[in-house]
Amino acid sequence: MNHYADDSMTLHTDLYQINMAESYWADGMHNRRAVFELFFRKLPFGNGYGVFAGLERVLEYLRDFRFTESDITYLREELHYEEDFLTYLKDVKFTGTVYSMEEGELVFGNEPIMRVEAPLAEAQLVETALLNIVNYQTLIATKASRIKQVVGDDSVMEFGTRRAQELDAAIWGTRAAFIGGFDATSNVRAGKKFGIPVAGTHAHSMVQAYRDEYTAFHKYAARHKDCVFLVDTYNTLKSGVPTAIQVAKELGDKINFRGIRLDSGDMSYLSKKARKMLDDAGFRDTKIIASNDLDEYTILNMKAQGAEIDVWGIGTKLITAYDQPALGAVYKMVSIEDENGEMVDTIKISSNAEKVSTPGLKRVYRIINQETMKSEGDYIALEDEDVQGTDELLMFHPVHTFLMKVVTNFEARELHQKVFENGEAVYESPSLTSMQQKVRDGLELLWDEYKRSLNPEEYPVDLSEPCWSNKMDLIKKIKKEMKK
Amino acid sequence: MNHYADDSMTLHTDLYQINMAESYWADGMHNRRAVFELFFRKLPFGNGYGVFAGLERVLEYLRDFRFTESDITYLREELHYEEDFLTYLKDVKFTGTVYSMEEGELVFGNEPIMRVEAPLAEAQLVETALLNIVNYQTLIATKASRIKQVVGDDSVMEFGTRRAQELDAAIWGTRAAFIGGFDATSNVRAGKKFGIPVAGTHAHSMVQAYRDEYTAFHKYAARHKDCVFLVDTYNTLKSGVPTAIQVAKELGDKINFRGIRLDSGDMSYLSKKARKMLDDAGFRDTKIIASNDLDEYTILNMKAQGAEIDVWGIGTKLITAYDQPALGAVYKMVSIEDENGEMVDTIKISSNAEKVSTPGLKRVYRIINQETMKSEGDYIALEDEDVQGTDELLMFHPVHTFLMKVVTNFEARELHQKVFENGEAVYESPSLTSMQQKVRDGLELLWDEYKRSLNPEEYPVDLSEPCWSNKMDLIKKIKKEMKK
Repeated sequence: MNHYADDSMTLHTDLYQINMAESYWADGMHNRRAVFELFFRKLPFGNGYGVFAGLERVLEYLRDFRFTESDITYLREELHYEEDFLTYLKDVKFTGTVYSMEEGELVFGNEPIMRVEAPLAEAQLVETALLNIVNYQTLIATKASRIKQVVGDDSVMEFGTRRAQELDAAIWGTRAAFIGGFDATSNVRAGKKFGIPVAGTHAHSMVQAYRDEYTAFHKYAARHKDCVFLVDTYNTLKSGVPTAIQVAKELGDKINFRGIRLDSGDMSYLSKKARKMLDDAGFRDTKIIASNDLDEYTILNMKAQGAEIDVWGIGTKLITAYDQPALGAVYKMVSIEDENGEMVDTIKISSNAEKVSTPGLKRVYRIINQETMKSEGDYIALEDEDVQGTDELLMFHPVHTFLMKVVTNFEARELHQKVFENGEAVYESPSLTSMQQKVRDGLELLWDEYKRSLNPEEYPVDLSEPCWSNKMDLIKKIKKEMKK
Repeated sequence: MNHYADDSMTLHTDLYQINMAESYWADGMHNRRAVFELFFRKLPFGNGYGVFAGLERVLEYLRDFRFTESDITYLREELHYEEDFLTYLKDVKFTGTVYSMEEGELVFGNEPIMRVEAPLAEAQLVETALLNIVNYQTLIATKASRIKQVVGDDSVMEFGTRRAQELDAAIWGTRAAFIGGFDATSNVRAGKKFGIPVAGTHAHSMVQAYRDEYTAFHKYAARHKDCVFLVDTYNTLKSGVPTAIQVAKELGDKINFRGIRLDSGDMSYLSKKARKMLDDAGFRDTKIIASNDLDEYTILNMKAQGAEIDVWGIGTKLITAYDQPALGAVYKMVSIEDENGEMVDTIKISSNAEKVSTPGLKRVYRIINQETMKSEGDYIALEDEDVQGTDELLMFHPVHTFLMKVVTNFEARELHQKVFENGEAVYESPSLTSMQQKVRDGLELLWDEYKRSLNPEEYPVDLSEPCWSNKMDLIKKIKKEMKK
């Protein structure tokens, strides 16, 4: 069906981006300097914080951004773009500068995760893929962190590949889950690609293939010294657990009886009964692993009931972010070069107040109180404000401006790194374990009330006074122009 | 971070599949003939039917199934599999036979979509990827068909890339949406890869770049003869629509004023007002396009209110299957070769009655009443039953067996095609437009009560008497063995 030799990611964009690039090119506007910010408005799952992920793939995408011969052929033959414009597209690469939070950074609504400064046409062409990548990976890292908060020191593993939304989601989702605090995945390809620990034992079908658990467990043990037996193929307490214990006793030191896995039934009840059977048989170190449509809500409930589960396997609910399967990050122009070569701030007005964008080049700071070592909130200031050289900050709510406080004795930690400079990647992704650590460090700075999984307090994301005034002035100006 | 030269799809599997393959191999069981069926139990979205999609990518995956050198290196160095087993894996390819429904076929709960007959280890190794592919693509084709039912003869376009769960979902999801009845996509890569029509105009940022709609619309029109103007950047009725009309009048025959696009606000109200403004200005053929978090529920409501919308752009709610983002298809062993070379049927018992599998090799027939030319239901029979040579069929509910009917004068249309034979693909995917036609033909056979989007009747999926008895006998046998 595909008549074209390759499948480049550069065409992974919405048609209107190419149409706009064409208009800009025809009008000589395409190389005007433009600045876009990528941010979401509302945290997913009613959570009190988000966990940013997706930067590595974004950088890979920007680095490789180039229309192939067959892309150009397609645009010419099927979409009928004209030759002059195609000549321009043939040579386009991404020459911009990108500032970004690092993966594992905690992120909140209405603050720029990334800032893209590039020639207008280029900035526009890359929008769709950037959103596609950041929206999903950030969503899953956030979901994973919610689950990690609930399991505490228990282990938690990603088991969702078969229910993921196609192949990319399975592997990039499990990477995001690892950043958010997961310990391992069942997906072997993700293990190879990202160095994530992989885990897994055997399935019901192995018991079916040998027709009884006794034989199946023995055959599994013959080749795998570290044994976890799946005990619910026929009847967990009457057949699965007793057989696992019997086989483990027969094999003695020949195996390490690491655990049993429960995959159906009331796992709170079954785990308590199974724990007692294992303990009575002397297998106190044998773990109980549970999987079957689990998420932070079921885990919280099962723990409240005293479930004796040591390791949690999470599939569908994590990998699809089942209760909110999309994050709504957007990419808005905040500034553009005018005909005189000056940068002018831009705004998108909407009758929906939350959708009005905040104009201008901005930096994001986390304001850390040096007495409590907790964060007072995030502070968004214009590029040229000297926040770090200030002794006293006025922080106020950007909508309900009477909500304000004055902060002294703080560290203003800037959250953006320069990751791309004039088309060159200038950032090396750290290891996934250090991203995991970044999440833990970030959470350490938050008061508990922001970390509650249900109805957390709203973490302050404030605008500096100059940033806020700049926005208000621009709104007034546009409204005046519209009246004319 | 990835130290390996390639990223083969063959490792896109759960670790336990490889562990089981190892045990089977060590035990000399790996080449025993095994039969697995892929099916889901429950239709998504409370819909009355599903639309199967995913076969093309499954065939591609099976065709290319081969562990690469670097896969073997990873399995050796990181996961510590032993050399003897790795020697086996190095040469493994998929040598099985696969029967499948065709893409665009209507499918229901508890009927085999695919049947995989292969050496045990191979059948197991491919499970995860098959489920990953079929689950997502079938989910989206089904969601798309629900939406198509509601829009009727209006056009409907897929706009979801930025909210899709990573890149694969965006392109395979839009292909599934096309199969389910969509007309076009905004994703250019999907257009190139699959030949799907692509659509799109310009974004708010273009109005921002030129700072006013008048200039932006003119600049867009200068290069695009077929014009659709986005009219909600500042104020739809006071600014966007009047400006679009003004520009269209000024340009006259130089452009085709195809449409305006609404992307925010109350689109039911706005569309009616905008329609009147367009009509009054003489632009009766100019279409109104709406997008903004639409799905079958909002469309149904807006149509009930008389919204004047001609073209619907659907993003997030379709591409993520927002209200149910996972389909739960499973892959169960129904038969296996025993130590004497005989095939024996297998079953998975569960305390949850719906989860008990149906043993044996089976075929699926759609029973079409030759008087009404409507379907009486689907009929699952054992491989060797002569359904097509029968004059009279007893159809009964497999759980509530007293629900029964006798059908005469029917055509029994078999739904499976052989798509893979002894490791060779023997099936060529038809065009996407003929898959779309297959959905329409399938729906033509269904009574309206199965097609209602809310609370449809349950379409009958019945077992033949021999198939049902075989299942009951096997349950009894297992229960007896468990007592011992």
